[in-house]
Amino acid sequence: MSNEKLTTRSENYSEWYNQVIQRAELADYAPVRGCMVIRPHGWALWENIQQSLDRRFKATGHVNAAFPLLIPKSFLEKEKEHVEGFAPELAVVTIGGGEVLEEPLIVRPTSETIIGYMYAKWIKSYRDLPLLINQWGNVVRWEMRTRLFLRTLEFYWQEGHTAHATEKEAKEETLRMLETYTRFAIDDAAVPVIPGRKSATEKFAGAVHSYSIEAMMGDTKALQSGTSHLLGQNFAKAFEIQYLDENNTQQFCWTTSWGLSTRFIGAIIMTHGDDQGLILPPKLAPIQVVIVPIYKNDEEKSKVMPVVERLRLELSDFRIKVDDRSEVTPGFKFNDWEMRGVPLRLEVGPKDVEKESVMAARRDIPGREGKSILPQEQLRGKIADLLTDIHTSLYERARAFRDAHIFDPKNYDELKQIVQEGWAFSWWCGDPACEAKVKEDTKATTRCIPLDQPARNGKCIVCGKDAHEKVYFSKAY
Amino acid sequence: MSNEKLTTRSENYSEWYNQVIQRAELADYAPVRGCMVIRPHGWALWENIQQSLDRRFKATGHVNAAFPLLIPKSFLEKEKEHVEGFAPELAVVTIGGGEVLEEPLIVRPTSETIIGYMYAKWIKSYRDLPLLINQWGNVVRWEMRTRLFLRTLEFYWQEGHTAHATEKEAKEETLRMLETYTRFAIDDAAVPVIPGRKSATEKFAGAVHSYSIEAMMGDTKALQSGTSHLLGQNFAKAFEIQYLDENNTQQFCWTTSWGLSTRFIGAIIMTHGDDQGLILPPKLAPIQVVIVPIYKNDEEKSKVMPVVERLRLELSDFRIKVDDRSEVTPGFKFNDWEMRGVPLRLEVGPKDVEKESVMAARRDIPGREGKSILPQEQLRGKIADLLTDIHTSLYERARAFRDAHIFDPKNYDELKQIVQEGWAFSWWCGDPACEAKVKEDTKATTRCIPLDQPARNGKCIVCGKDAHEKVYFSKAY
Repeated sequence: MSNEKLTTRSENYSEWYNQVIQRAELADYAPVRGCMVIRPHGWALWENIQQSLDRRFKATGHVNAAFPLLIPKSFLEKEKEHVEGFAPELAVVTIGGGEVLEEPLIVRPTSETIIGYMYAKWIKSYRDLPLLINQWGNVVRWEMRTRLFLRTLEFYWQEGHTAHATEKEAKEETLRMLETYTRFAIDDAAVPVIPGRKSATEKFAGAVHSYSIEAMMGDTKALQSGTSHLLGQNFAKAFEIQYLDENNTQQFCWTTSWGLSTRFIGAIIMTHGDDQGLILPPKLAPIQVVIVPIYKNDEEKSKVMPVVERLRLELSDFRIKVDDRSEVTPGFKFNDWEMRGVPLRLEVGPKDVEKESVMAARRDIPGREGKSILPQEQLRGKIADLLTDIHTSLYERARAFRDAHIFDPKNYDELKQIVQEGWAFSWWCGDPACEAKVKEDTKATTRCIPLDQPARNGKCIVCGKDAHEKVYFSKAY
Repeated sequence: MSNEKLTTRSENYSEWYNQVIQRAELADYAPVRGCMVIRPHGWALWENIQQSLDRRFKATGHVNAAFPLLIPKSFLEKEKEHVEGFAPELAVVTIGGGEVLEEPLIVRPTSETIIGYMYAKWIKSYRDLPLLINQWGNVVRWEMRTRLFLRTLEFYWQEGHTAHATEKEAKEETLRMLETYTRFAIDDAAVPVIPGRKSATEKFAGAVHSYSIEAMMGDTKALQSGTSHLLGQNFAKAFEIQYLDENNTQQFCWTTSWGLSTRFIGAIIMTHGDDQGLILPPKLAPIQVVIVPIYKNDEEKSKVMPVVERLRLELSDFRIKVDDRSEVTPGFKFNDWEMRGVPLRLEVGPKDVEKESVMAARRDIPGREGKSILPQEQLRGKIADLLTDIHTSLYERARAFRDAHIFDPKNYDELKQIVQEGWAFSWWCGDPACEAKVKEDTKATTRCIPLDQPARNGKCIVCGKDAHEKVYFSKAY
């Protein structure tokens, strides 16, 4: 609600990010270290993300369910890599109902183990497969360095968990959900993402392969924005998820898991935001259109407000808000809604009433350039077109920015330069030692090995040995 | 998925309840004592409950947000009654990231304290009021005796938390949400509930007054199905939730909280279910209409399936499912969908194709009486009418059952009899000692003091002293 000037992105990107979140009232710091409160404006954005994803999940045959928050400690220990990956991050309940528990309970950091246990109970025959379940919920990971939305002790997400009869089906599912995240990011959030495979070092603890969508933020750092894991038979063997096949033979299932979290809100903020605040993609914005009535006195008000009310009803297909506050000026309101990222503002004053027009101001194009006078007649269609246009322009702008900051370094020295201000897209032999050297020298990590690869091969940017895949190196959140 | 015969309600009501939940695949036991897994069919029911309530909350000006799962232990201790009520039920995180925490964290049993803390931070002036926030989430209470849906260590619910400038507004809000729950229960769940005030003994720990909706289950026990609390200034004073009024004077807010949980699924099961299984109210049923195609051979199948497909498309406004499984018989399917409580079944066989009709079977009326032959023409309107009719009939049946089991005992001996097989609606002087005596003698408790009261006064059913309110006594879940 503040009209103070924001720290600009070029002054201090990190400070800009924190201020936008606070002033747009997306989230606040909770009294527990590293936890956040997601405020109504932020939660409404998450609800729209949820709806968009949930529709896509259900269209691909998934159903929702709810598994327990508390997991017996011994479950975590059944998959070796999994426990090694998560052990340092656990929150542990040791007391329940006033008594010390015989076996401590873990507040779930992710649910492969407890869902694996239930799947082993439910799955009996090939007829029970595939089992395609998603869960919307909260998880806790004891992170030491936290940032609102990007890395918090508790966060909200969805986690899909599927079991299949064959490796082929599990692979298809893993890539289908990666594609689902990609479509969601591009088509609904206007966030250009690159889907690809994670390196062995960067993969999920317990997965055979992990895939992710990677987005470039406004400071050129990468943000992993969603992940899809092929778990092979690792969890099936740890939890004995087995089925009788058509020949009556006991077989282990092949499983997958995939998740997208409130971290994605960070991706939206840092992909689209500017020095006036948040810019929300129209398809996900809690408020798509705000109408600000403009009048100097009661006479003007009595002319303006009936038109505003008529337009509000006419535009009720959109998520619309009329800002009729009397205690603040129109100028204050403009700044306020710009801070909150509303994609389109309509101003209605006495002159607009006379001329049967409205003034439309696009959030993505500041100042006069983004303004246009629209006739009130058939306004609905024009608003729909404008919102589509804003979506496309946000996407194109972000893609152009990203592409302008991806480079193909000629040698290792160039790579070291490039990852200071962008991404390097380079041949890599696949050796973790080369990856580790880049990280040590530059703090950049491998982000993903994109699914689309050049036909030819090349030489590793680090060691010069033969390489058959290119990878993105960059600093990351 | 089982076609085995259920234990009947008269044989063993409690066993019938557990079997229905398992066989209808609403929920399953989790590996942690007292926790449950809500399976896809159960979760889809909860999603419909959520949508119905969420729409009502938003229509009355509420917005959603998300507050942290973990609460500092010291917060619980700030409101004396609150901590006394919840201390025995807490799950405590004592270890995070491998280190023993300086201050243990409580897994929230309810969120008055942490929300109170944030409200104190956010509310500055009368212009910030009322603050009307709801949260959908999970909570943990360390219950010793658990039952699926009715009482589990972890459960899902919504908790509304509001802050107001005056006591009057807070009272109005408390009763508005009680009325919202009542309308939801009656209009969407077909569960006849009685709204009323809880006694001082039965109220929420920290409230000035608690209100509830009470439903009668099929064994005549009561189930508290939703609660709304007037918290007065108790939490406002404990957490310093203050505002500057129009005269620039610092005032404490008046707050409320209200919640409805997955327990309500238990209310639906035990209000409507019969010896064939679940019966779901049409407005909340995940599947409203199931079509079972009937054929003996491929020739019949080739006649039947195109009609089934056409009807499926025509009825796509409803939540519809075609059961085209080939490995089970139609008879098996009938039992299966009856167990799962689908309100309406349509059968389509070769004769129906010839006669351009379908056989409709109502779940609420078993056997031939519930069956009717409907012409395929304009089927959509007829299905809509039938579903409305099923809703009304479920509601009327439950209300008739309830009213037939509420009695007005003439004396205390009669009361003791009555509460073995129904509810006693009796004058009560308000003395907790009389309430305690009833509980000790019969295990029945006061359920609620209904808002609608007789104009005259009476004599307490226990002590014979003057009484100006009537209360329901009954055994309860």
